Amino acid sequence: MLLEAVYHRPRVNWSYAYDENTIHLRLRAKKGDLTEVFAWVGDKYAWDQTKELIPMTVFASDDMFDYWECESVPPFRRLKYGFLLQKGKERIWMTESEFQAERPLNPYRLFEFPYINRGDVFAPPAWVKDSVFYQIFPERFANGDPSLDPENVEPWGGVPKPNNFFGGDLQGVINHLDHLTELGITGIYFTPVFAAASNHKYDTEDYMRVDPHFGDTETLKRLVDACHERGIRVLLDAVFNHSGSTFAPFVDVVRNGENSVYKDWFHIRRFPVHSENGIPTYDAFGFVREMPKLNTEHPDVKRYLLGVAEYWIKEVGIDGWRLDVANEVDHGFWRDFRKVVKQANPEAYILGEIWHESAPWLEGDKFDAVMNYPFTEAVLDFFIRGSLDSEGFAHAIGKQLSRYPLQASEVAFNLLDSHDTARLLTLAGGDKRIMKLAALFQFTFMGAPCIYYGDEIGLEGGEDPGCRKCMEWDKAKQDRELFGFYRKLIDIRKSHPSLRTGTMTFLEANRHGSKLAYERRLGDESVIVLLNNEDTAQSFHFNVEIERWKDLFTGETLSISRGVLSVKLPAYGFAVLGAADL
Amino acid sequence: MLLEAVYHRPRVNWSYAYDENTIHLRLRAKKGDLTEVFAWVGDKYAWDQTKELIPMTVFASDDMFDYWECESVPPFRRLKYGFLLQKGKERIWMTESEFQAERPLNPYRLFEFPYINRGDVFAPPAWVKDSVFYQIFPERFANGDPSLDPENVEPWGGVPKPNNFFGGDLQGVINHLDHLTELGITGIYFTPVFAAASNHKYDTEDYMRVDPHFGDTETLKRLVDACHERGIRVLLDAVFNHSGSTFAPFVDVVRNGENSVYKDWFHIRRFPVHSENGIPTYDAFGFVREMPKLNTEHPDVKRYLLGVAEYWIKEVGIDGWRLDVANEVDHGFWRDFRKVVKQANPEAYILGEIWHESAPWLEGDKFDAVMNYPFTEAVLDFFIRGSLDSEGFAHAIGKQLSRYPLQASEVAFNLLDSHDTARLLTLAGGDKRIMKLAALFQFTFMGAPCIYYGDEIGLEGGEDPGCRKCMEWDKAKQDRELFGFYRKLIDIRKSHPSLRTGTMTFLEANRHGSKLAYERRLGDESVIVLLNNEDTAQSFHFNVEIERWKDLFTGETLSISRGVLSVKLPAYGFAVLGAADL
Repeated sequence: MLLEAVYHRPRVNWSYAYDENTIHLRLRAKKGDLTEVFAWVGDKYAWDQTKELIPMTVFASDDMFDYWECESVPPFRRLKYGFLLQKGKERIWMTESEFQAERPLNPYRLFEFPYINRGDVFAPPAWVKDSVFYQIFPERFANGDPSLDPENVEPWGGVPKPNNFFGGDLQGVINHLDHLTELGITGIYFTPVFAAASNHKYDTEDYMRVDPHFGDTETLKRLVDACHERGIRVLLDAVFNHSGSTFAPFVDVVRNGENSVYKDWFHIRRFPVHSENGIPTYDAFGFVREMPKLNTEHPDVKRYLLGVAEYWIKEVGIDGWRLDVANEVDHGFWRDFRKVVKQANPEAYILGEIWHESAPWLEGDKFDAVMNYPFTEAVLDFFIRGSLDSEGFAHAIGKQLSRYPLQASEVAFNLLDSHDTARLLTLAGGDKRIMKLAALFQFTFMGAPCIYYGDEIGLEGGEDPGCRKCMEWDKAKQDRELFGFYRKLIDIRKSHPSLRTGTMTFLEANRHGSKLAYERRLGDESVIVLLNNEDTAQSFHFNVEIERWKDLFTGETLSISRGVLSVKLPAYGFAVLGAADL
Repeated sequence: MLLEAVYHRPRVNWSYAYDENTIHLRLRAKKGDLTEVFAWVGDKYAWDQTKELIPMTVFASDDMFDYWECESVPPFRRLKYGFLLQKGKERIWMTESEFQAERPLNPYRLFEFPYINRGDVFAPPAWVKDSVFYQIFPERFANGDPSLDPENVEPWGGVPKPNNFFGGDLQGVINHLDHLTELGITGIYFTPVFAAASNHKYDTEDYMRVDPHFGDTETLKRLVDACHERGIRVLLDAVFNHSGSTFAPFVDVVRNGENSVYKDWFHIRRFPVHSENGIPTYDAFGFVREMPKLNTEHPDVKRYLLGVAEYWIKEVGIDGWRLDVANEVDHGFWRDFRKVVKQANPEAYILGEIWHESAPWLEGDKFDAVMNYPFTEAVLDFFIRGSLDSEGFAHAIGKQLSRYPLQASEVAFNLLDSHDTARLLTLAGGDKRIMKLAALFQFTFMGAPCIYYGDEIGLEGGEDPGCRKCMEWDKAKQDRELFGFYRKLIDIRKSHPSLRTGTMTFLEANRHGSKLAYERRLGDESVIVLLNNEDTAQSFHFNVEIERWKDLFTGETLSISRGVLSVKLPAYGFAVLGAADL
């Protein structure tokens, strides 16, 4: 038994309340090392009457470790616990202080889950796990009101550049909601819509005003209402890490220096406030002089920004906020942000932009989810870059599942591209088959998928600014076959709960190979997804218990021979199979 | 290289801001496995211009692992980082996503410390690390005002029972402050002083009233003022997990059941509110019917208790709160508690009672410290129970240091006994030599030591109620030699900063042996502590660089022969040696 590999430490992803009654316990061990693992649990004040062994199962694996898990519903909402590790006949008990050969007789040195306090339970809004999001970059989605166009507007469909404008606005979105409804979208994430000088609006000039080229508060209200009528929820982008350099308080600091009443609103390293050799004399987003970092710990700044967060929820009824550069803002700010937002709308979704593993923000007191870039990277590594084989991909996914509590994985914001990356089809070298495989995984995995506007009709584009080109509204120029694929994908996801909250079991994942198969299961429902990420036809064979399966894309029934399900897929082909009586 | 043993995960004890400019990075590896470790750090937005390798050193070890550490002062308060692990010529790079043979060319998949936000920096009050605490159980310390005695008071010095009274009060403490001053105490932790039926007062009846048998608000104010005049800070006990059953809101719930306006102040599982077969129909501390658990998430309860916390700081000027059963109260409550307390007194010390590893409460948003029971257990295991050899003890201490950020270890509340345990001398079987060894370790280690009242004059007593006997004020019956030992210990600690915040290096710790030696070092100051926990005389020999050493207890100068320091200690003997020019 490799005890150095065994890991458990209370809280975060290792022990947490899944709901007000249920505790999940997890333990890491060297891959393949242990044959059985049990949690040894009981009430700390009535140990002898309540102690029991609960078997654990491997719920995820990566290249080095297995992750074991069990749940416990303690009668008095509190637990002492240890673990019994078995490798064949070898038995070791794990307590908080050590590994030992003897069964712990009393609970004193075991781990503890002191008490499930309801307010500490991480409870993201339930609607998110059933949602399908769509990301809109407003300047490039649709021009619905040319009277608002910037002076220097260029013809729709031109080449996107860092600083040019094409006249997209909120009325344009309203005009095209049928497109989203037809696709099956149930949530939109808008990049910033507030007044700002740039086309991307991440350099806010006025947080309380809709950008005049996009519309006004009334337009935004109409947009949100129209979305709600269609069952589409709306997220706006809270750019609170930094303002724009035209934000009035910053303008004042530039003008008045140390005498400005706003000097503590920012992190000024020294005066005068300017940039020397590309490095501002104040903290900024990166070293971008147009984006001075806000001092979110300052009471006035905090009050102002929390007021902004509350205002737009109450004024126009948005359903959540996406938080720009979320991990560079102080944790204290986000804790208060959560209180204000949830008080204004208890069902609001708080989505942080963090490109890294983000467990410290996913404990219930800050965000509901993060933009799941580790997921993105794993999918791209396997389907696009080919830097992972299917085993490596399964491991990357398993590692990601192991890092968060289950409720975080269920509402993760799973994107494959965005305004900050090249587009999926472009990454796929224009090969739609490969793009489809990646999207198929995205839509059959746990977490809410998000489509970057235009991906569904074949928009291409490299890194910013290429990925921010104008949406194509000429149906003749849209890839309608791709649109149909996405539509079907969404339909299948919506009609199969197992794809949203079922267990995830890899059935096939190979070293040096790219065939991938997995099962999603929830209660009696089972869906098997087969992906051939090879450039030659491949056959899949599985022993299955259920006898009748249906291809959910084609509707064909599959025949099982002697308990074996066999499917042959062309190069880059796929199949999604549901137990046929579903 | 055993990569399964290598562990790093951002935050908590692994990467944290030590102050507003400094980041500490730590990495765990199999004991003795790695020869060199480097942190590979740089600014994430200027990687190529700032990247550098910082050597790490082993700052603590336990039986299975070494803990490597380094610090970084990043120019822009943010870091990307990975690690370079070396075992002889074998080199492996560690990133957030994997171990790899190649040096990471860009920072994208490294770990991240996004930004040092000042408000997130865990900054416990600086005075604590220089403090020596004394715990007083007021009913048993001194009777200064017999007019306040309970009706059923028993003669001072009688046998302590679960429910009897001896008349101790706050005036008694005021009368005996000279004793504490002579000893060198700089802080007192009082178990509860508010109105309650029991002798221990952990079943609060009225949080806003000093127990009438102890005095009144004026007495408490005089006590705090008198302490402050002597440079002694005062902590009171916040029993907020549960109230007493005579607390008016609970009385109301018992009387009016579901119709009580206070029914949500508690966790009532079902009505009527009573106890069945020893199990209350409401959540309690353990299953103690007299201690109904408070619903600290309820806004009214929270407002009330936070008001209590603030009131006693403002009204009588206390210097902090010790928090009873702290880990069973919700984290949200403690976060707001910290805000209220620190606003009322920015230098207040917030000390949680948690018997377990407590890192989730020591990140800066909740407590400053916990009662360091893992430290207690390690000391008792080695010096008292003999269940650890000196190597095992060094490992337990190393593990404990590895678990917390440095600033938490510096202000840990290091106790060896309390009202909840048997007394130290009794645990030591009455052997003062052994007691002294344990106390010597306590006073020469990092963290604020606390003496349980009477230990310093030889009070004995087993588990509660034995440990709560009356203080002995007859000097003829006090162990004055022991008092002198504690006084000297405190004096040495106060005059040697290295004992408070210096590094800790074990010089001798043996498997199957009980000789222990370690060095505390801070800048040029070095103190070596030798402890012979064997029942025979033992010799210690060390190579030392400094030539002149002085025994800080005896004042004797030690001669060094050919760079070797040799000391012979009797059974259970000790020596504390300072570099002589100090």
